[in-house]
Amino acid sequence: MTDAKGSSRRSERSRQAILAATRALISEVGYTKVSIEAIAARAGVGKQTIYRWWPSKGAVIFDSFLALSTTEEGPQVELPDTGDIEADLKVVMRATAAEFADPEFERPIRALEVEIVNDPELAAQFREKLARPVDEAKKARLRSAQRAGQLDPGADLDLVLEVLYAPLFQRWLHRSGPLTAEYADSLVDVTLRAFRAPSS
Amino acid sequence: MTDAKGSSRRSERSRQAILAATRALISEVGYTKVSIEAIAARAGVGKQTIYRWWPSKGAVIFDSFLALSTTEEGPQVELPDTGDIEADLKVVMRATAAEFADPEFERPIRALEVEIVNDPELAAQFREKLARPVDEAKKARLRSAQRAGQLDPGADLDLVLEVLYAPLFQRWLHRSGPLTAEYADSLVDVTLRAFRAPSS
Repeated sequence: MTDAKGSSRRSERSRQAILAATRALISEVGYTKVSIEAIAARAGVGKQTIYRWWPSKGAVIFDSFLALSTTEEGPQVELPDTGDIEADLKVVMRATAAEFADPEFERPIRALEVEIVNDPELAAQFREKLARPVDEAKKARLRSAQRAGQLDPGADLDLVLEVLYAPLFQRWLHRSGPLTAEYADSLVDVTLRAFRAPSS
Repeated sequence: MTDAKGSSRRSERSRQAILAATRALISEVGYTKVSIEAIAARAGVGKQTIYRWWPSKGAVIFDSFLALSTTEEGPQVELPDTGDIEADLKVVMRATAAEFADPEFERPIRALEVEIVNDPELAAQFREKLARPVDEAKKARLRSAQRAGQLDPGADLDLVLEVLYAPLFQRWLHRSGPLTAEYADSLVDVTLRAFRAPSS
């Protein structure tokens, strides 16, 4: 039993090493130039180890991004809920802005973004597996704010999320302005003004 | 004099043919696979005609996009100003949504977008030559609305433009929702709610 556990722990370590190597290589050489050989060499595993878990290069690349928002306990996408939607969204948006301002973090995501823009099928897979669960977690927090009278109960929550995130996304993608905490705060302020409850 | 005029008119026709051929080829084969040879063949001119006006493939591609918003009279980027900011923005945003929903129109822009995301220098050139003049025209219209008391005079107009356009940009880029007239209208409504004049 100890052996099986040790072996499973070694497997998980290999898996994590492969996913980390994949993200590092995408940052360094770009998505199209990443090869299974290079991933295996960087992770210190054999090619067969990779093929045991993933059918293709696209699959391992995709999982390497999925792993960024997933822990051993499952996806980590719950938003803080202190009862104060403004404070909670500012925490989340400041963290998001800081991540996208960090070259180490943003480089592989930029590479993935280019693939998504070019490839409608990858875009659909991305939406289904990554964006949608995260959006659902965000909407759960917005619904709680609607119930608390801090957000228009009739608001289209997909539109709320677009107004909140798309400006930051576009600014990051086009490098058209700084991604600061002040900017993050201003997006929260704008969104809450646009979608505040009618009577407030 | 008639000869010089005729020759200049023929030159302008060749120039326009080259720019149109460039956009068509980008749509068909993608930015990276477009060659000066292919552009020349499609436009019915010699390669030397292209090199007479443009130093590189990048330069002709860039001008082919610039030409989309430029007429013989100069850049055409003035926004309607009937005195009603809501009506005027809805005209503009509906037209924008319709353009990006049109595969013929959006395909070359998507190809350019990928280059911009990958290439900070091209992104800077794009901002300077194309995005900035257009944004300035939009801001002129917003300033007129501020003077008319239809928009918060303290609003950050860069932020207003981001809130108005970035959701549509992101939805187009990720193909994450329909680009309808209703959607265009809702972005105008949201933006005006977020940035309305304090007393109104």
